[in-house]
Amino acid sequence: MEIDIPEVRAEVEAAFRRYEAALVGNDVETLEALFHDDPRTIRYGAGENLYGMDAIRAFRRARSPQGLARDLSDTVITTYGRDVAVAMTLFRRAGAPGRVGRQSQTWVRLPEGWRVVAAHVSVIEG
Amino acid sequence: MEIDIPEVRAEVEAAFRRYEAALVGNDVETLEALFHDDPRTIRYGAGENLYGMDAIRAFRRARSPQGLARDLSDTVITTYGRDVAVAMTLFRRAGAPGRVGRQSQTWVRLPEGWRVVAAHVSVIEG
Repeated sequence: MEIDIPEVRAEVEAAFRRYEAALVGNDVETLEALFHDDPRTIRYGAGENLYGMDAIRAFRRARSPQGLARDLSDTVITTYGRDVAVAMTLFRRAGAPGRVGRQSQTWVRLPEGWRVVAAHVSVIEG
Repeated sequence: MEIDIPEVRAEVEAAFRRYEAALVGNDVETLEALFHDDPRTIRYGAGENLYGMDAIRAFRRARSPQGLARDLSDTVITTYGRDVAVAMTLFRRAGAPGRVGRQSQTWVRLPEGWRVVAAHVSVIEG
């Protein structure tokens, strides 16, 4: 299994940037489109555990659009073969000094394109 | 990409059980062996962000072996193709009532076997 094939990584980096722009812009339609629409998709959020795309959609649609802006750091995207990638990043928000967020995503290339199949977001002191 | 091929999932379930037994038994050697020994392996822990296997090893070797026992729930292992899997689980510890842990792992089949290439652990109220 070849790791970090440049053109594969470039594809995932583009998908990751698209996701990030949608997140800070509260573009719920794009956020939903970039997750695999499947009951096996799971997202552990900062304060909730969402099993299945129905639960993820319900959460996103009810979410406040305020205070979503954030600065990323230590972002690492690593691809394994041609169809799978892991995207890990830290983030900070101006409204939460002294706290650092961690976001991890597993991306899979499906027939419809690159999609997140699992995600985990948490916030700690730091 | 075929999801949840039964024999592939059985392999990952076995690796996951081996990891869990090593974790609660503080079998550091097995825990280390089940992570991909690579600078690109990342583990966001309950209170620390570990980039690269050197950082992960240093953390594990310094960790207290006390209070590691835990009960898992809502464990979902999903395989994508023959070489990648995501393992998501909640956990609770007797010493931390009112708190629920979340553990996510991305497993990849490497020449040496199934290995965790990314992990994220966090604890929230719940």
